[in-house]
Amino acid sequence: MTLCWRCLLTQREVEEAVLGRIRPQAAEQEEILAIAREIIDAVNASGIAEGMLVGSVARGTWVQGDRDLDIFMLYDPDLTKEELEERGLALARSIATRFGDTWREKYAEHPYINATIRGFDVDLVPCYRVASGAEIRSAVDRTPFHTRYIRERIAPLVDDVLLLKQFAKAGGVYGSDQMTEGFAGYLCELLVLHYRGFLPLLRAAARWKPGLFIDIEGHAAKTFDEPMVVVDPVDPKRNVAASVSLSQMFAFVELCRGYLDAPSDRFFFRPAGEFFTQETFAALVADRGTYLYAVTFATPPFIPDVVVPQLRRSLEGVRALLERSGFPVNRAEEAMGEERCMLLFELFAEQMPAVVRHVGPPVWSRENAEKFAVMWRQRKHFCGPYIENDRYVVEIERKYTRAAALLASPELLGVGLGKHVKQAMEKEWKVLEGEECWSPVFAPFFTAFLQKESPMARVLRNGK
Amino acid sequence: MTLCWRCLLTQREVEEAVLGRIRPQAAEQEEILAIAREIIDAVNASGIAEGMLVGSVARGTWVQGDRDLDIFMLYDPDLTKEELEERGLALARSIATRFGDTWREKYAEHPYINATIRGFDVDLVPCYRVASGAEIRSAVDRTPFHTRYIRERIAPLVDDVLLLKQFAKAGGVYGSDQMTEGFAGYLCELLVLHYRGFLPLLRAAARWKPGLFIDIEGHAAKTFDEPMVVVDPVDPKRNVAASVSLSQMFAFVELCRGYLDAPSDRFFFRPAGEFFTQETFAALVADRGTYLYAVTFATPPFIPDVVVPQLRRSLEGVRALLERSGFPVNRAEEAMGEERCMLLFELFAEQMPAVVRHVGPPVWSRENAEKFAVMWRQRKHFCGPYIENDRYVVEIERKYTRAAALLASPELLGVGLGKHVKQAMEKEWKVLEGEECWSPVFAPFFTAFLQKESPMARVLRNGK
Repeated sequence: MTLCWRCLLTQREVEEAVLGRIRPQAAEQEEILAIAREIIDAVNASGIAEGMLVGSVARGTWVQGDRDLDIFMLYDPDLTKEELEERGLALARSIATRFGDTWREKYAEHPYINATIRGFDVDLVPCYRVASGAEIRSAVDRTPFHTRYIRERIAPLVDDVLLLKQFAKAGGVYGSDQMTEGFAGYLCELLVLHYRGFLPLLRAAARWKPGLFIDIEGHAAKTFDEPMVVVDPVDPKRNVAASVSLSQMFAFVELCRGYLDAPSDRFFFRPAGEFFTQETFAALVADRGTYLYAVTFATPPFIPDVVVPQLRRSLEGVRALLERSGFPVNRAEEAMGEERCMLLFELFAEQMPAVVRHVGPPVWSRENAEKFAVMWRQRKHFCGPYIENDRYVVEIERKYTRAAALLASPELLGVGLGKHVKQAMEKEWKVLEGEECWSPVFAPFFTAFLQKESPMARVLRNGK
Repeated sequence: MTLCWRCLLTQREVEEAVLGRIRPQAAEQEEILAIAREIIDAVNASGIAEGMLVGSVARGTWVQGDRDLDIFMLYDPDLTKEELEERGLALARSIATRFGDTWREKYAEHPYINATIRGFDVDLVPCYRVASGAEIRSAVDRTPFHTRYIRERIAPLVDDVLLLKQFAKAGGVYGSDQMTEGFAGYLCELLVLHYRGFLPLLRAAARWKPGLFIDIEGHAAKTFDEPMVVVDPVDPKRNVAASVSLSQMFAFVELCRGYLDAPSDRFFFRPAGEFFTQETFAALVADRGTYLYAVTFATPPFIPDVVVPQLRRSLEGVRALLERSGFPVNRAEEAMGEERCMLLFELFAEQMPAVVRHVGPPVWSRENAEKFAVMWRQRKHFCGPYIENDRYVVEIERKYTRAAALLASPELLGVGLGKHVKQAMEKEWKVLEGEECWSPVFAPFFTAFLQKESPMARVLRNGK
């Protein structure tokens, strides 16, 4: 009998082996800090801003191979926002031009510069130098406080943070962006601080319930209604876990339980996915017996954190339109591609009968009731008006008997799409059916859609 | 230009003409009262009970051609229920045998005798002679009080009552039985008394709303939650309108408005219905594009007031089963035939895809969640378990992909059928589809189903 090598390793050995692969190496460390030093010197030399290294590099919690460097440029808070943006961008541009291979302007709450400098992905971000995390004028002003808070405390727990970040990344729950709705790096650091280590955190998380409340500094200054609350140690009114969705909170919980039951490096390294071909896709859809429809349109020219929430709102709007038009939806998901966005709907029916009930006013609302009855007696209808409880009901011709026709109709523009999605769809959208929904660029999306599973199910499948 | 003769009549002329056709004639009156007198004398002659003429004949509010005669036999309230039933039935049987052509025992809350005597349909009902309507021991004990109450007051309004009864009959809202859920004769009399006439009642009813409250004696002794409340003048805890459904209340409201707008004898006499043939039925269903399914079984051997509520409960139970199994229902109705009962469902789909979502326990309920996940990873499933919010969801094979198969399955016996319906269905039931649902005996039912309309719509259609 042979045992898998994985089964022979203890949990401690698993973690040591993982750390060996993810701890930054000395040369890497020197290189990245040297670059940071040069840029900060350049910012300071300008005489108008103070350079500060922030992010995981500053906190010593970055993972081997990470190429992200965040340099903040702290300005006098007496400047107006316009002055800050203008001067900050001018300085950032001059630094990016001097050091960078390429650079471009990006936009979050405020504009900043993203440059590629000797193979590193460097963000140059202007912000205000405020007195405390509670006095910030823009979200980025808080970052220097986060950096200081963690830097002063994290030293004995750096390995634990590295393990947690790698664990969360491989589990698909790392990142507070709108697409992921998971755990930010700063949140990982706070959790490790709070529970005093990777393993104690996992043991606690295995028992998490909605309503989790962690307040390290014991200074919460409002009530939070998110299911997971971690009060920001530098801002008593902020929940660091606000972006964690309930689904991702429990995806993490499930992974923690799975790892504690059977520790393995599979929880830290995720094999490259294999995606369904169009043939497999078509065969799986045929098995399910459902009807797939994709609504696609040009991707609005904004970052995912702007577009993705709009896609989700649009998805729910179209889903509600489908359901109130009689088409029951099994599942709906959105995807944001480089060129096209997709709203995908899996329906239980592609066609609905001609007849549909239309509920009118209460009979006791005499004027409305009589208007309704007179109108429908004159128009084409199947039967009625009849009285059901205290209301008139009439059975009339359904406007859209085919889901495809409904999705191609102007009704779609009236369902509360987000602003940029609506702008894109006002130009054009396409409705694709069944197999024709598929395209290579969306293969990973369709694979995840048809193979939808919890992170633990994926770990188990990959382990086979 | 020629005007329809109807349009030339005033409302008063319409009513006079109607009264001419519905007022009992002198000969008829003499005949019915003579029979009543003979039977009452026989009851009194027994020395153990007092005979009393009740019902509309006693109150002088019966309509020409009515052949119903109600004779109550009042017994000493010291008798036990068993003694009352035994002695009452014995006396009733002997009278029925002496006067009647045929007779049979019937059963409401208590047994009574229904006899055919010289062409009249005579009920001989034993009851207690109690001191007031509030002290009754069985519902029938109240009837003598109703009779006295109305007899003492109704004389000036007899024509109005006759008009109202005829109006309600033709409108399909007369009768407090479970099938009709409409206006009892006694309720009609009280409404005419309260509003002081047929026309004032109609004018008031045109403005009725749910929450109508009428308490002629101003003695209500409880709060009622039905939408229409008429407190019984002889029992302050009883709502005479309790059996009126919201739909029938507003059917009456609609008819009142229609009559006030355009008085006509069409509101008092309803032409014999014409029923759809199987061909018309099939063509109309095809137009609607829906899927009809009938569940039929042997009619339980009980009166409609017992069976019909069970049919309604069964109908709602099966409707809920269909909907939670993925089959959306447009309309469902029940019918009680002499031999077979029918639950009829009009569906928007006959078939559903193989896949169905199955929502599991919350992930934070660790033991249940792990049991669920382990179980479904081993069983055949399409995808999952995945995490949605805080719950596991798995997509599995739908048990019944065809509505017909679901309706033929034992699941039907588990949906809270009424007792007697369940007993009948435990022996057998049939599932019919589409055109094969039709049979001549149910032709009126199918016609009403496909031509479903408010009473006013019917009046207008008949007037064409």
